[in-house]
Amino acid sequence: MASSIEQLKVCLVGSGNWGSAVAKIIGNNVTRLEGFSRDVTMYVYEEIVDGEKLSEVINSRHENVKYLPGIKLPTNVRAEPDLVSSASNADILVFVVPHQFVPGICAKLKGSIKPGAVGVSLIKGLDANVGGKLELVSETIASSLQIPMSVLMGANIATEVAQECHCEATLGCKNSAQGSMLKRIFSTDYFKIEVVDDLEAVEMCGALKNVVACAAGFADGMDLGSNTKAAIIRIGLVEMMSIIKSLFPDSKKKTYFQSCGVADLITTCFGGRNRRISEAFVRTGKSLAVLEAEMLNGQKLQGPATAQLIYKILEKEAFKIEVPLFVKVYQICFEGISPRSLLEIFSIVSNL
Amino acid sequence: MASSIEQLKVCLVGSGNWGSAVAKIIGNNVTRLEGFSRDVTMYVYEEIVDGEKLSEVINSRHENVKYLPGIKLPTNVRAEPDLVSSASNADILVFVVPHQFVPGICAKLKGSIKPGAVGVSLIKGLDANVGGKLELVSETIASSLQIPMSVLMGANIATEVAQECHCEATLGCKNSAQGSMLKRIFSTDYFKIEVVDDLEAVEMCGALKNVVACAAGFADGMDLGSNTKAAIIRIGLVEMMSIIKSLFPDSKKKTYFQSCGVADLITTCFGGRNRRISEAFVRTGKSLAVLEAEMLNGQKLQGPATAQLIYKILEKEAFKIEVPLFVKVYQICFEGISPRSLLEIFSIVSNL
Repeated sequence: MASSIEQLKVCLVGSGNWGSAVAKIIGNNVTRLEGFSRDVTMYVYEEIVDGEKLSEVINSRHENVKYLPGIKLPTNVRAEPDLVSSASNADILVFVVPHQFVPGICAKLKGSIKPGAVGVSLIKGLDANVGGKLELVSETIASSLQIPMSVLMGANIATEVAQECHCEATLGCKNSAQGSMLKRIFSTDYFKIEVVDDLEAVEMCGALKNVVACAAGFADGMDLGSNTKAAIIRIGLVEMMSIIKSLFPDSKKKTYFQSCGVADLITTCFGGRNRRISEAFVRTGKSLAVLEAEMLNGQKLQGPATAQLIYKILEKEAFKIEVPLFVKVYQICFEGISPRSLLEIFSIVSNL
Repeated sequence: MASSIEQLKVCLVGSGNWGSAVAKIIGNNVTRLEGFSRDVTMYVYEEIVDGEKLSEVINSRHENVKYLPGIKLPTNVRAEPDLVSSASNADILVFVVPHQFVPGICAKLKGSIKPGAVGVSLIKGLDANVGGKLELVSETIASSLQIPMSVLMGANIATEVAQECHCEATLGCKNSAQGSMLKRIFSTDYFKIEVVDDLEAVEMCGALKNVVACAAGFADGMDLGSNTKAAIIRIGLVEMMSIIKSLFPDSKKKTYFQSCGVADLITTCFGGRNRRISEAFVRTGKSLAVLEAEMLNGQKLQGPATAQLIYKILEKEAFKIEVPLFVKVYQICFEGISPRSLLEIFSIVSNL
């Protein structure tokens, strides 16, 4: 697929914490791999940092001083504040922006994408389309830009990946040649990629795990102990599977044993901002909005919004499946019920 | 199955931390359930605690002051230092002793078991039989005492169960009527039991997770970060599945989504003594034997011995399956290789 004549060009659409960590990997890989252009562009939403433009700082110091300080980026990664120029001649578009920016970015890129380009989404989030049906971020991008999409998800705290801690990720891909090609630009000896053809389940895991992390955070806030927390994570995983199976009947159970499944769930339920804010929600009694503002420096929580979306979708479908944990997280976040009612998930199936 | 005439009698063979926590549950349950005798006996390996016999302390104060201090036991649980008298008229034998005591206990009980009695093992560990083949503790007991056996495993830190923290457990059972009956004596509103017919997988999970916990502890000791630890746990789970499948081809993937699978693995890899000692092994450079003596107050580590057993069994079978994590844990514990070599599991499947 990748010959030395083709010289596939990569553009990263996004340059936050995770985008910058991935830029380091891809920038290094294209230098040593055949078939790829050495020039990698990274779209930077321009902002002023200490009186300088962030894109210029990145290009002169080869470091994203705002979102990934302390990590040198390869010199062949060029920050570009103009979205269309960064992306228009790319063969591979790596989408890694907060999911609420996706529609705006797609609207700007529409009509400017190189024919034959492919995309891969690293974005964790879900949306509803105008009909109120769930829409994956990869679907939003694919239908807007008319490009085939893959997704990359896994237990990947960005800073640790940037520091070259060993880890894994799952590439969900509908086309195996595309999967092999994308695997090459992401793989390193410390970042191990497994390709699976179960795209929707991979992407859904990336979004749904944040709801389980909220439940885990509530448990931590109530000091429920490690048995209860492990049970909550397990029940959350089973509910994730049940939601995914009901929305994507062809999804496969083995996908949950990939990095995007159990591994990402574990990291998110022990670290992760959804867990952290949810714990603080119980301990402080402050609202999620206040805690978001106080603790996340402008970033947004994904868990509560995802719980709400799933709740509304399931409500439409008259709750054909039972997902008490997901319902409780929604109700605790949006309907003011007590976090302690989370424990009711243990009595929903009677024991005796 | 349980009529008010039959009055099934329960005996706990064992009275440690977990045995005492379970005695509390069963003691309370038989009082309110029909079909069970109120009298529960608990075999206590007699020892002197502060000048008094432990069995007498338990029977007068209704508290196992040595192994589960601070928790009141139901008054209908009677401690009994004589193994044969404690067990001989029981219809249900709940085995909950350290696994190295099983052969001795079975030898003493042989010939003294009530006809028709059934057993359930809460013991986590594995052994090899005389032919060097793996033998489950439930198999050892079943073949020695000629009684049908079930197993109960799950994410159950004893003290938290005794404090009535909500959690779950998995009952592995070959006979569904027996499963329903046993479920009744263990279930409470805070301790939720799921019955599965995949006994061997349930029991194997309980033993093998300790090997993964050693790897997780090594990772903690090397400060490898949360991505790496999550990846290690995931790889460990997949290797557990692969070992279990190769030894028990009829085992089912869905069992790993039960408490005995992912949930127990999570608790053990974040809490648990195998993880703790393995972390100390890396940080202090002391031997496992020294750390065991210093940190475990006479208890034994299960993880290293289980890794060794699995290693030997697989060696015999000429390593038909690849379980690099299990092999590394064995080699780190017994062959003096560096804990850092654990990271080689990430390069065993080549990426590019």
